[in-house]
Amino acid sequence: MNFLDQLKDLSSQVKFKADLGDLSPFRNVVVSGMGGSGIAGAIFSEIYDRAPVQVVSDYSLPHYANKETLFIGISYSGNTEETVQVASEAIKRGCQVKLITSGGRISELDGDLVKIPGGLQPRSAIGYLLKPFLSSFITAEEDEYNRVSKLLSEMDSNNEEEEKLAEDIVKSEQIPIIYGHYPYRWIAYRWKTQFNENSKLLAYSAYFPELNHNETVPLKATYNKETFRFLTFGDTPPRIAERAAITSEITNTIFHNIKVRGETFLEKIFYLIHFGDYLSYHAALKRNIDPEDVSVITELKNRLDKS
Amino acid sequence: MNFLDQLKDLSSQVKFKADLGDLSPFRNVVVSGMGGSGIAGAIFSEIYDRAPVQVVSDYSLPHYANKETLFIGISYSGNTEETVQVASEAIKRGCQVKLITSGGRISELDGDLVKIPGGLQPRSAIGYLLKPFLSSFITAEEDEYNRVSKLLSEMDSNNEEEEKLAEDIVKSEQIPIIYGHYPYRWIAYRWKTQFNENSKLLAYSAYFPELNHNETVPLKATYNKETFRFLTFGDTPPRIAERAAITSEITNTIFHNIKVRGETFLEKIFYLIHFGDYLSYHAALKRNIDPEDVSVITELKNRLDKS
Repeated sequence: MNFLDQLKDLSSQVKFKADLGDLSPFRNVVVSGMGGSGIAGAIFSEIYDRAPVQVVSDYSLPHYANKETLFIGISYSGNTEETVQVASEAIKRGCQVKLITSGGRISELDGDLVKIPGGLQPRSAIGYLLKPFLSSFITAEEDEYNRVSKLLSEMDSNNEEEEKLAEDIVKSEQIPIIYGHYPYRWIAYRWKTQFNENSKLLAYSAYFPELNHNETVPLKATYNKETFRFLTFGDTPPRIAERAAITSEITNTIFHNIKVRGETFLEKIFYLIHFGDYLSYHAALKRNIDPEDVSVITELKNRLDKS
Repeated sequence: MNFLDQLKDLSSQVKFKADLGDLSPFRNVVVSGMGGSGIAGAIFSEIYDRAPVQVVSDYSLPHYANKETLFIGISYSGNTEETVQVASEAIKRGCQVKLITSGGRISELDGDLVKIPGGLQPRSAIGYLLKPFLSSFITAEEDEYNRVSKLLSEMDSNNEEEEKLAEDIVKSEQIPIIYGHYPYRWIAYRWKTQFNENSKLLAYSAYFPELNHNETVPLKATYNKETFRFLTFGDTPPRIAERAAITSEITNTIFHNIKVRGETFLEKIFYLIHFGDYLSYHAALKRNIDPEDVSVITELKNRLDKS
C-alpha cells in the first residue's frame, strides 16, 4: 500500500472490530507504548478517567504496578525494545496483561493478544491502535463508527483546506506549533509527531490553559517569532476560547484556528487526527519529500541492535 | 527581593522544614497545579512510583478521585483559578486534601494547609514548593540538604558556564530545545518554562527515548535547523547515552551536553534546576530584558477576571 492509500485506510480501520476482551476488575491502568503506537494510549488517557492511567514511554514499569493493574502494551511492529521490556516486567509482576500488536516479539509473550492487521507504518495504523480502547471503554452504537468512517472518506476525497495550509506553512518555511486543549491535547501532540515523521519538520505542541502560565510570555517578546506558525483547534469551551482570544490580542499573535467537523466526540477526534494526517502529508509533498520514509529511525534501531 | 536575590534564595529554601503532615493510606495521588507551581508536582510524579500520580494542569478533577485519593493542590499565590476550582471539587469528593501555598483564596478552603513563605515569583519558589514532597516521600538525612544548599551557593557565586552558554544562544538568536531523560524529563520542561518566563524566548522540551520515535526524523531534514540550540543533560544511563550518540551522528546534530554535578539524587536535580535558572537569567540579561517581568501573564489574568 502506498502512503496515500495508508492514510485512506483509516476510514475502514474505524470499522474494524477489536476490543480488549474480558476485563477483570482493576484499580489502575498502565499503558506502555512509544511513538506512533504510544499515542493511542495517550489519547485514551485523556478521555478515560474512571481509574488512574499512566502512559509509559520509556523502559521501566512503575513500582506500584501489580495484580490489580490493567497493563496494556502497544507495539504495532511488536518489536519495540522499550515496550517489550516493560511488558515482560508487567507479566512477571502479575498484572492483567493485554498486548495490542500486529505480531513480532511481543506477541510471543504470555499476555492476552489483541491482534490487529499489519503492513502499515505504525502512525498510519492509528485506527487499529485506538479501536480496542474505544470498543472497551467508550459506549458507541455500531452506526456511530459508520458515520466516522463516512466523514473520513469525505476528507480522503477533499483535503484542499489541509493542502492550502500546508503550502502556506512550507512556503513561509515555518515550524508548526500546535496549541491543543482538553480533550484534544494529545491530538496536538499527534500532529507534532506527524509533522516530524511525514513532513520531516521540527514541530512542537502545548495546550491551554497551561501555556498561559509560561509560553504566553515569549509570544510577546521572543526573537524569531516569524519562524513559527501557531495552530489551534476549534470546539473550544468558553473559558478556553476567552483565554485564546485574549492571548492572541495581548501578544499580537495570529492563531490559525482549525474548525472541527462532526457531531459526536468520536467524529471530532478522528476528524482532527485525519486533518493532521493530510496537513503533514501535503507539507511533505510541498517539500518534495517522501512522507513515508523514516529510514533515519530504522538506521538508529539497526545501530542500537548491534551495540 | 530583586530577581537575582530570588534565585540565590534557593540555597536556603532547600533547608526550609515543610512536609505534607500525617498521611492516611491512599490508593492514588492527584496533584493540581499550573506553571511554576505545577512543575513541583510534575517533578514529584517522575520520582515517586509507589502509587499512580496524575498531575492536572487544567480545570477538572478526574472522575476516579475519591476518599482513597491523596489530593495535593499547589498554588504559590493561592489564587490560580484552575487550581482553586480543582481543589474545591477534591474537597467535595472527600479526597484527603493538602494545599501547598503562601496564602490567597486556596488557603481558605477546607484542606490541610502546608504554608510556605510568600513574596517571590512562583518560579523562584521551586525549593519551597518541592520540599513538602521531598520531606514526605524521599528519605534523606538532614545533612543531605546542607550539601544541596552548599552546591547551590557555589552556583550563586560562580555561574560563568551558564552565562557563556546563554551568550552563545542569544548571540546566535537560537531557540532552545531541551532533551531530557528519566529522571530529568520534567526538569527539561522546567528549563523550557524558565526560558519562556525569564528570557522571554520560545523554547521546547522532549525526552529520550520517546524522541527517537518521531523528533529524530526532522533532526536530519528539517528547514531552519540552525534556528535551534539542542541541549541535553549528563548523568545518562548507558542505553540512553548510546541513543543520544547515535542520534547525534546519523542526523548530524550537535547536542550541547550539560554535565551534572553532585553525588546524590537530590544534589543532581537541584543542580540541574539551578543551572536552568541561571542560564535563562543570563539569556534575559544578554537580551537587555528584565528576567522578573511577566506582566503579560498579569494582564491576561486581569482581563480574564473581568470577563
